Amino acid sequence: MDQTVKDALFRQLVRLGDDCLVLGHRLSEWCGHAPMLEEDLAMPNMALDLIGQARALYTLAGEIEGKGRTEDDFAYLREEREFTNCLLVERPNGDFAHTMLRQLYFAAFMQPYWHAAQGSAHEGLAAIAAKAVKEMAYHVRHAGEWVIRLGDGTEESARRMRDAVEELHRFTPELFETDEVTRILAEAGVAPDPASLRPEWDRVVDEVFREARLERPQRFFPRSGGRAGLHGEDLGHLLTELQYVARAHPGARW
Amino acid sequence: MDQTVKDALFRQLVRLGDDCLVLGHRLSEWCGHAPMLEEDLAMPNMALDLIGQARALYTLAGEIEGKGRTEDDFAYLREEREFTNCLLVERPNGDFAHTMLRQLYFAAFMQPYWHAAQGSAHEGLAAIAAKAVKEMAYHVRHAGEWVIRLGDGTEESARRMRDAVEELHRFTPELFETDEVTRILAEAGVAPDPASLRPEWDRVVDEVFREARLERPQRFFPRSGGRAGLHGEDLGHLLTELQYVARAHPGARW
Repeated sequence: MDQTVKDALFRQLVRLGDDCLVLGHRLSEWCGHAPMLEEDLAMPNMALDLIGQARALYTLAGEIEGKGRTEDDFAYLREEREFTNCLLVERPNGDFAHTMLRQLYFAAFMQPYWHAAQGSAHEGLAAIAAKAVKEMAYHVRHAGEWVIRLGDGTEESARRMRDAVEELHRFTPELFETDEVTRILAEAGVAPDPASLRPEWDRVVDEVFREARLERPQRFFPRSGGRAGLHGEDLGHLLTELQYVARAHPGARW
Repeated sequence: MDQTVKDALFRQLVRLGDDCLVLGHRLSEWCGHAPMLEEDLAMPNMALDLIGQARALYTLAGEIEGKGRTEDDFAYLREEREFTNCLLVERPNGDFAHTMLRQLYFAAFMQPYWHAAQGSAHEGLAAIAAKAVKEMAYHVRHAGEWVIRLGDGTEESARRMRDAVEELHRFTPELFETDEVTRILAEAGVAPDPASLRPEWDRVVDEVFREARLERPQRFFPRSGGRAGLHGEDLGHLLTELQYVARAHPGARW
């Protein structure tokens, strides 16, 4: 594989790994706090799906980089500005409506991403995609059902769903951004062009919103910067918790 | 100075330093979030008083221990179970009423503590006390005024003050606990017996409560354990924030 493609793949793997790790951590914050027992199992399970994906992505990134970095180095020993996750995944949990909409927005993007990446020219990425695509299909279904149930529910649940759309929609355009990294990978047949996944995302979100009696905001100001390491203030707080044990006990083993 | 007294003084200095550092950090969390500009200056100033006291106490503790530990080692490189602050100071800020009552409870204890410690047989501690007693007198006055204003204020402010009393009062008996450390120091004339400060604390708190139209809870279950390093779950989260930069950049200088 050409060095330019390798470099781009390394960067894309870290982006995807960061998305999965950060969103996985956010979901794990619900552990023990969900509104019903079934969800108290479902959310940590979804968190584990994402953290499992992050592990595979970081490990592959480390192999491609060839400098001996492990999954733990990527997760625990980088600083905020070195994280290149999209802003959507770092948003605070807010209420349950908020969390479920964030999950729908993200999973409805990743499901077609992994679907396309199953045919990747890079075998390692294709293998990760083949497993992740099934997990993301479940996340879309699960989160979509909750968005419908709450959006088309009581007066209060509908209001909370609308608030969540108002708050989170502006973070969705960043998912579809393209740059040199994504162009190189799309041309080499290694990973899909994010912009190409937009129609499928629109179809899934529109279908859920129709059943949920929700509307997309007519006007919103798109937010981005995550891929360049420019994050909201919440990511730093998330990382202090996520990284504390590894920072306090450098190199500890058990 | 006898080694037994030195050991006891070391432990007491760390306790007091931990109280000041943790409460100072809690107050600093208000920075930029206070309900009015004047308070947005007053609270960080009180935080700085306490963090300044913590610095002096840790530095003296390090000198007495004689193992080369600095104020930074005490503040940033110890784990939760090694912190021996009382539980009161680690309680989350809650609302403004909550924060002001916590401040009154603590300062009404520390003011007479420092007043007595001005006559300490240990010159270093006497010097810290001479400065700190003035700062704590201001904290008592400032917090006391707010407890009165809110307790004898609107229906909502009075309800919030009552909730704060209900929540925090159970953490006050720990302030007056005596053990081998405090007994050795009191007998050697180095630091006051905490139990002996109870009448003055009662007098100040009762006077404020009378003006504030507040009552002490008739029944409550005292909580303690902080002096033995047994803390609530909130302290761990506080320390992840407090220690993160020092942990992420070990030994960094600028």
